[in-house]
Amino acid sequence: MSSNAPSTPGTIMSGEMAEQPAVLRRILDEGAPAIREVAERIAAKNPRFVLLTARGTSDNAALYAKYLLEIQLGKPCGLTSMSTTTAYGAQPDLTDCLVITISQSGGSPDLVASTEAAREAGAITLAVTNNADSPLAQVSEFHIDVLAGPEKALPATKTYTAELLALYLLVDGLRGGNGNGVEAAKELPELAEAVLARKDEVKALAARYRFAERMVLTSRGYGYPTAKEAALKLMETSYIPALSYSGADLLHGPLAMVDNISPVIAVVADGKGGEALQPVLERLRDRGADLVVIGRQAEVERASAGFALPTEGLLEELQPIVQILPLQMLAYEVTMARGQDPDAPRSLAKVTETR
Amino acid sequence: MSSNAPSTPGTIMSGEMAEQPAVLRRILDEGAPAIREVAERIAAKNPRFVLLTARGTSDNAALYAKYLLEIQLGKPCGLTSMSTTTAYGAQPDLTDCLVITISQSGGSPDLVASTEAAREAGAITLAVTNNADSPLAQVSEFHIDVLAGPEKALPATKTYTAELLALYLLVDGLRGGNGNGVEAAKELPELAEAVLARKDEVKALAARYRFAERMVLTSRGYGYPTAKEAALKLMETSYIPALSYSGADLLHGPLAMVDNISPVIAVVADGKGGEALQPVLERLRDRGADLVVIGRQAEVERASAGFALPTEGLLEELQPIVQILPLQMLAYEVTMARGQDPDAPRSLAKVTETR
Repeated sequence: MSSNAPSTPGTIMSGEMAEQPAVLRRILDEGAPAIREVAERIAAKNPRFVLLTARGTSDNAALYAKYLLEIQLGKPCGLTSMSTTTAYGAQPDLTDCLVITISQSGGSPDLVASTEAAREAGAITLAVTNNADSPLAQVSEFHIDVLAGPEKALPATKTYTAELLALYLLVDGLRGGNGNGVEAAKELPELAEAVLARKDEVKALAARYRFAERMVLTSRGYGYPTAKEAALKLMETSYIPALSYSGADLLHGPLAMVDNISPVIAVVADGKGGEALQPVLERLRDRGADLVVIGRQAEVERASAGFALPTEGLLEELQPIVQILPLQMLAYEVTMARGQDPDAPRSLAKVTETR
Repeated sequence: MSSNAPSTPGTIMSGEMAEQPAVLRRILDEGAPAIREVAERIAAKNPRFVLLTARGTSDNAALYAKYLLEIQLGKPCGLTSMSTTTAYGAQPDLTDCLVITISQSGGSPDLVASTEAAREAGAITLAVTNNADSPLAQVSEFHIDVLAGPEKALPATKTYTAELLALYLLVDGLRGGNGNGVEAAKELPELAEAVLARKDEVKALAARYRFAERMVLTSRGYGYPTAKEAALKLMETSYIPALSYSGADLLHGPLAMVDNISPVIAVVADGKGGEALQPVLERLRDRGADLVVIGRQAEVERASAGFALPTEGLLEELQPIVQILPLQMLAYEVTMARGQDPDAPRSLAKVTETR
């Protein structure tokens, strides 16, 4: 048998999901000093505002960073609309602007082009990638390696949580956190291990969605990127159309679509984001929605079903690194239950050559 | 019969859609001087960057403004994550920052609160609303009235196109356009009339989606807000789950979900955005997707079906004001065909009291 023979469906993705505790530990043990140094050098340049550029899974990591930068650092932030540069040739003045480009491969031509354009326009450029030798890392003034090791399954899992932790440590460093971030995050590898061990619970949840024709995911605050990433993961593996909305946006229109046969997954953080979601959860319960909660035990008990996270005492801003794990597992289990291969969804390529 | 008796389903929404040519004419004839004055006063303050705050339909108008501001004005822009202020109490330094808040009613408490917080944080604040007496207009330093008249149907239609045109004229004024914007836009009322008269074509398209269980909308550049707004309109009226992606993002994951029974609607502008979408259209045709094109005649002819827009010679940045019209009509017709009432989707309120 050739070494290129297809492996058993799902083994690549499940292997990469299982690596996550080790990757998180590696970032905390080996990656943190380099991230802190990059943060100190950027902080010395005193950026006034931040633009984040990414696509797909990394775009959800960028949204997480946006919350951190606005809340923890008080910097106004925007997510880049890349076509303004690559299609329309926009030339904004980016003096005092930090442009962070996040990409697993560091290989997408449009990300490289937009980073080059940003650097020419006066921006401080930082690449966050899983490949220090990538073109994106090369053209950026600063680089952070997320140290996740090669990722071969098409659905990104370990690089997502690695990006989140690296971005958390970056913002901690930009604030002059002086190593407190590593201390606050030190339990993450063990928490991740504990969650990843609960396969049977996720399998039971997956049975619920085997025949689902649509799903809605919602959250608020730091948990909102989790809802978006879970929707992407479910869609690209199981092909179930999964819509994600911040709780507030859900009430502005899409709620009409939710009825008693539409499954809703709510990511309820232990903290202010979870509190802000309460009125939305009430509306969903009033409508008789099939509501599954990922988060606090007390909220899981009030829902149709759920997965309680061991996040007590963990800073709300670190919870997304744990929240996404049962949702990655759910995408995997639903896909396997539907007889598809989560390792290689139809029609996708690992490095997407958009321009 | 009481005056509160329910009207025939759809009459409110169809009446408001039909008003759009008159509203556009009113903005060009009566609103433009006030918008130019506001623009000149803001330009004199020389903002370095722009944050846009909105929800629902107005958030799609905000995204349109983001493209204009980045491409035409060269200002870095971001869309606000409102919960960073309202739930987490973030206090960013907004000196030199223009904060534009867009809201039909000007009444959502969270928009008022976040605008007040922005003003305290040093921002130049501008409200774009359909109600000059609204709380949002009151708390903002500057105000633009989109002059659409009372909007009573729950799905916003005339206020969306009014917001787009007002924002176009604002950015034209910020650039020192000196009335050129009004000249470039002067054919819009007639073009809108011509499109709105083509009801039979839209009805034929609607038949295609009567039994659809999902829809995907895509575009790039200036047309991308049109795709998002069309998805929202379809969802809130017909309850069909409608997913929208920029063409580039579609290739990063969600494409896996598109198969030969998934209808895709592509908004193909006559200009750079339409050109940048070509590789995505090719991939969709390769996959055998049911592709409906809203846009250039030549692209409609290569698709499964479509609606050709009379946008030849119209600036690409003005085309979104025409592009959305057949998609509003489509949402209306699909909903009527499914026996529902587009005027009053279940579970929605006109002023959404998110906090």
